[in-house]
Amino acid sequence: MPKRLTLDQYLDGLRAGNRFVLSRAITLVESTLPADQQLAQQVIDAVLPSTGRSVRVGITGVPGVGKSTFIEALGMHLVAEQDLRLAVLAIDPSSQRGGGSILGDKTRMAQLAAHPHAYIRPSPAGRSLGGVARATREALLLCEAAGYNVIFVETVGVGQSETAVHGMVDFFLLLMLAGAGDELQGIKKGIMEMADAVVITKADTGNELAAKRARREYQSALHLFPHAASGWAPVVRTCSALTGEGVPGVWEEVQRYLELVRGNGFFASRRQEQNLHWLHQTIREALETRFYARPEVQQRLEQLQQQVQDGRKSAFGAAEELLAL
Amino acid sequence: MPKRLTLDQYLDGLRAGNRFVLSRAITLVESTLPADQQLAQQVIDAVLPSTGRSVRVGITGVPGVGKSTFIEALGMHLVAEQDLRLAVLAIDPSSQRGGGSILGDKTRMAQLAAHPHAYIRPSPAGRSLGGVARATREALLLCEAAGYNVIFVETVGVGQSETAVHGMVDFFLLLMLAGAGDELQGIKKGIMEMADAVVITKADTGNELAAKRARREYQSALHLFPHAASGWAPVVRTCSALTGEGVPGVWEEVQRYLELVRGNGFFASRRQEQNLHWLHQTIREALETRFYARPEVQQRLEQLQQQVQDGRKSAFGAAEELLAL
Repeated sequence: MPKRLTLDQYLDGLRAGNRFVLSRAITLVESTLPADQQLAQQVIDAVLPSTGRSVRVGITGVPGVGKSTFIEALGMHLVAEQDLRLAVLAIDPSSQRGGGSILGDKTRMAQLAAHPHAYIRPSPAGRSLGGVARATREALLLCEAAGYNVIFVETVGVGQSETAVHGMVDFFLLLMLAGAGDELQGIKKGIMEMADAVVITKADTGNELAAKRARREYQSALHLFPHAASGWAPVVRTCSALTGEGVPGVWEEVQRYLELVRGNGFFASRRQEQNLHWLHQTIREALETRFYARPEVQQRLEQLQQQVQDGRKSAFGAAEELLAL
Repeated sequence: MPKRLTLDQYLDGLRAGNRFVLSRAITLVESTLPADQQLAQQVIDAVLPSTGRSVRVGITGVPGVGKSTFIEALGMHLVAEQDLRLAVLAIDPSSQRGGGSILGDKTRMAQLAAHPHAYIRPSPAGRSLGGVARATREALLLCEAAGYNVIFVETVGVGQSETAVHGMVDFFLLLMLAGAGDELQGIKKGIMEMADAVVITKADTGNELAAKRARREYQSALHLFPHAASGWAPVVRTCSALTGEGVPGVWEEVQRYLELVRGNGFFASRRQEQNLHWLHQTIREALETRFYARPEVQQRLEQLQQQVQDGRKSAFGAAEELLAL
């Protein structure tokens, strides 16, 4: 772990879009050391006025759906053709490998990683979902302060982390494979309902018909869901990261969405709501962490949990007993 | 408000299946008075060994779907033909009418309400969702202690309460109208994914074709969702509460489900998980209630919320400031 920089060094570096300083700043917000956390909050508070101007896109899909390839293809389209600056972050609390994660291996997106207008950052390892989510959200703010105007937040699509990502992005993209009716196997319940767009990947030669059929099926399934508060009706697209076909179209949908929600005020109100959500989420997590960390609670908890589980004690009674400690 | 009974009077009355005492006991668990709550917990803890032996069914659907008529038809089938004892509870935190709620008007289910083996209880009014949910869950235990072997928990199908109900029942039933593709309008996102069965109501004369088509559509939409941990594939049925057609079939599905999940162990593990969930949920609510009730927090909260909402202060920084108070 490199020694921390000074507050001014972080701020100057971020303002200049210095990737080295950005990485150091993200390491700082990921740190669990109290001194680091304190400095991290000073950095975050100082850069806040320079944040909020990017488009935040959540991307999820089960392993094997071709997430890296898709992100590389869409990312290259953004940096090389749309002249945008893109940061890719990941939320993967399951990752326990030191320093690594679903994005640890940058060779996964070699071309994108090498582009001067792209920044790829793996998920912090060995932390709880709450910790990873908070670190990722703050990394997102740091990337915005460093001038990135599109942020991808990637998840593995099999866990609780999608809800956390949904709470920090403007647009949520679900990647699916064309296949035989069981495409959603492995996708956790509720994820599909968060999607603003479903993208059928690997719609390559020989697979076009299956992709088209899957598109029709998902479009009709999504049709059964209610209209979102955004006024946006979720779309289904097919694409081939291999040939590039359909990739620009995905970005066009994001643009269509932004035009709609910036026009009807949903974009701003959603962001405000997300900010408030994070405030209360942070408080909730802190309260619970403090409570369950108390030695007298830890001492009684296991026994009471067992009694509640077996129906020998009521949940409320056990909670009262713990809270009275 | 009647004076409270003694602990023994509650216990004897519940054991005897006395509906008057049951109602008084439910009023007790609904009370927010500390003395009532303390006695309520003694009652709950004492009856716990006599609980858990009923089938708990959550029933939801938007207003107009014919929920009361359906519950009355299915309920009459259970009490009159299956020789079961049925309690119907409601979760409706939106209800502010004194003592009343979606089930306040018993004339909604006049026939069922008059049956000696049915017990109908309206939702407690003027409480938060957390409060209503806890009261309902404890009312459910009291009904079980009083010998009811089927419990319906009804919600209005438009709010957050479905998640709470899902956390306290064994089987979740979603009522839908046959119609033209937009049947889910008004059904909150995520509810359909909780359903173990979707029942298309009002499949009456003249409406059979639409009902059949809706059934096909929902069956194919549900097919896209992943298999539940229970191993159960959600089913779609049509029924007419008017003619009674299809009503026994709904109960047969519940039976099929129970056979499956009792056999594979899911029934027991789910109930244990629900017990634990309620323990931690109760603790979380108590911690948050206590925190936000503190005068120094209340004093700062509004201003900090505004700053966070506007992006002038980070969520984490504001949370730290409040937690430090």
